[in-house]
Amino acid sequence: KKILVIGGDGIGPEVTRWGKRVLEAVAEKYGHEFVFDEGLMGHAAIEATGNPLPDDTLEKARKSDAILFGAIGHPKYDQDPSLKVRPEQGLLRIRKELGLYANLRPIKLFDELLSASSIKPEVLKGADILFFRELTGDVYFGEKKKADDGSWASDLMIYHAYEVERIARKAFEAARLRRKKLCSVDKANVLESSRLWRAVVQRVAADYPDVQCSHMFVDNAAMQLIRDPLQFDVILTANLFGDILTDEASQIAGSMGMLASASVGDGTGLYEPIHGSAPDIAGKGLANPLASILSAALMLQIGFQMQEEADAVLRAVEQVLKKGYRTVDIADKHTENSMIVGTDGMG
Amino acid sequence: KKILVIGGDGIGPEVTRWGKRVLEAVAEKYGHEFVFDEGLMGHAAIEATGNPLPDDTLEKARKSDAILFGAIGHPKYDQDPSLKVRPEQGLLRIRKELGLYANLRPIKLFDELLSASSIKPEVLKGADILFFRELTGDVYFGEKKKADDGSWASDLMIYHAYEVERIARKAFEAARLRRKKLCSVDKANVLESSRLWRAVVQRVAADYPDVQCSHMFVDNAAMQLIRDPLQFDVILTANLFGDILTDEASQIAGSMGMLASASVGDGTGLYEPIHGSAPDIAGKGLANPLASILSAALMLQIGFQMQEEADAVLRAVEQVLKKGYRTVDIADKHTENSMIVGTDGMG
Ligand SMILES: CC(C)[C@H](C(=O)O)[C@@H](O)C(=O)O
Ligand SMILES: CC(C)[C@H](C(=O)O)[C@@H](O)C(=O)O
Repeated sequence: KKILVIGGDGIGPEVTRWGKRVLEAVAEKYGHEFVFDEGLMGHAAIEATGNPLPDDTLEKARKSDAILFGAIGHPKYDQDPSLKVRPEQGLLRIRKELGLYANLRPIKLFDELLSASSIKPEVLKGADILFFRELTGDVYFGEKKKADDGSWASDLMIYHAYEVERIARKAFEAARLRRKKLCSVDKANVLESSRLWRAVVQRVAADYPDVQCSHMFVDNAAMQLIRDPLQFDVILTANLFGDILTDEASQIAGSMGMLASASVGDGTGLYEPIHGSAPDIAGKGLANPLASILSAALMLQIGFQMQEEADAVLRAVEQVLKKGYRTVDIADKHTENSMIVGTDGMG
Repeated sequence: KKILVIGGDGIGPEVTRWGKRVLEAVAEKYGHEFVFDEGLMGHAAIEATGNPLPDDTLEKARKSDAILFGAIGHPKYDQDPSLKVRPEQGLLRIRKELGLYANLRPIKLFDELLSASSIKPEVLKGADILFFRELTGDVYFGEKKKADDGSWASDLMIYHAYEVERIARKAFEAARLRRKKLCSVDKANVLESSRLWRAVVQRVAADYPDVQCSHMFVDNAAMQLIRDPLQFDVILTANLFGDILTDEASQIAGSMGMLASASVGDGTGLYEPIHGSAPDIAGKGLANPLASILSAALMLQIGFQMQEEADAVLRAVEQVLKKGYRTVDIADKHTENSMIVGTDGMG
């Protein structure tokens, strides 16, 4: 298998290193041949080439069987909204170019982290949600405009029926293999694009009579996720709503530092933590590498159909947590034998 | 003072009744003259007149000093995305017609409800956030389009600099009277309209050097609100992001049933609970009327500058909670002397 590794910005490279090392260990133990290559993207790529997604990286990505990615973003651009070339363009473009329209974000709490969350343990216990976030449409990719004199700016929120349909089918298929419940989240009481979304999901749902399908407004969903996460199984939603809700849902898993995601379409897949580049702790050796390691596990499971290998990685993470190892983001005064470690210690 | 009462849909009328009765009690005790009138809006108005905001209601609203509003929405429309006349259009239109561009949503936990939330008490204690949600722009009011053949649909997310500036000034003014911290929430790493938003807020911030201004991406904000609500004082954000984040933040106040909001501009103001029409419990006498009662308190405070009267209402709510009265949404097994009451009992 050809794996392209893109560390990206901030803590990206330091955590991705550990995702890669876990893949190497799996290859050795199970006798697979994983061939690694490296690529630049984001601020790092802008600095080196002027382009947030150099042709060379895109070329390698197309030829890969899977991509292990770190994080993107740099404070310089966040402080100056007028800069034209921006790191995030690299990530958005690679998603679009490779047709990675379905972003899967499994949210599951490791029992050992039950008390690390700001949410009460009794509310969280047993939570197990799989998000399907649409990834190549919505206001992310609709036409952007602005007035020359700075008096207004706009982004087009747009969905095509085929875009909704293909991810809806993937989500219903997944729900079938789980608890057979799917909740589609939109804002159909206000948005035309959400009304299209809802109509298409209703149509697709008719082909999956064994899956219980419900619809929820995004404002209510943002509240319900925290109030009672156990009510959800599969959540299907648009690009922007998914961006917001999955970050919020990271609190269900104890920390953002624990969450992996898989972006897939019809070809290669991209596997990445849902956390960002965290510039404030970059280079300090404090970042939690578990989200990258769990991204590697998702690659094994979804990308390579290596379920046994993926389970072995999950078990290893569980054991490390059980032994009491914690990075600061998941540290918790209530765990007796807790040992605070850095990125490399945890890796 | 002329007050227009619009009960609206679902639990709207049953809770608004109590907001109104509290205003009557205040008038009596403090010797004010409040003259009440009634108006239709939403599904109730569609049934009666075919129009979600009848001219007559709008006329009365324009002439009022303040509007006490309940809730809007009906399941019939949510199940059928193709219906053209919809209850929410009434609320959106009244906001636009009256120029109610600033929606204030104070999120503060009553100590008595510390254990009613799904978030841990130690994370919540002392949380006190004031949201400024922009209310007459964004993807809510941008042009809506759809293909005749149902193959796509779109909404325009658009902001004008003047729209951002006027609400930003209101938010900075409010921050001055509080803990002098303002966090502006956007998605400037992806959206052109957010980059305009950020640039304008940065410009306005220069006029308020005594207020500490920061910027946060909406996905991160959705996470931080739950992880550590104490870091926030005033949060300033766009219409759509504000819709999502304030519903989420209702968990900080224990329940959606506790949260009031004020929509103001340059004329009359509209005061309403942030909860919706809750069709599942409508007519059952179970709904919590405190959000409507607290909306009445906001009307007294913000609309009529009657601070003493507003404080009296707040104190009454506090006392009732202290005595142990709880509607089901804020019920909590850990409160010893807790007594479950219905809408009228609480009222
Ligand atoms: C970095 C940013 C462009 C990206 C997004 O908004 O999609 C990130 O927040 C994510 O969720 O992967
Ligand atoms: C009912 C709906 C149109 C409304 C909104 O989205 O603004 C509601 O959710 C609110 O927050 O007041």
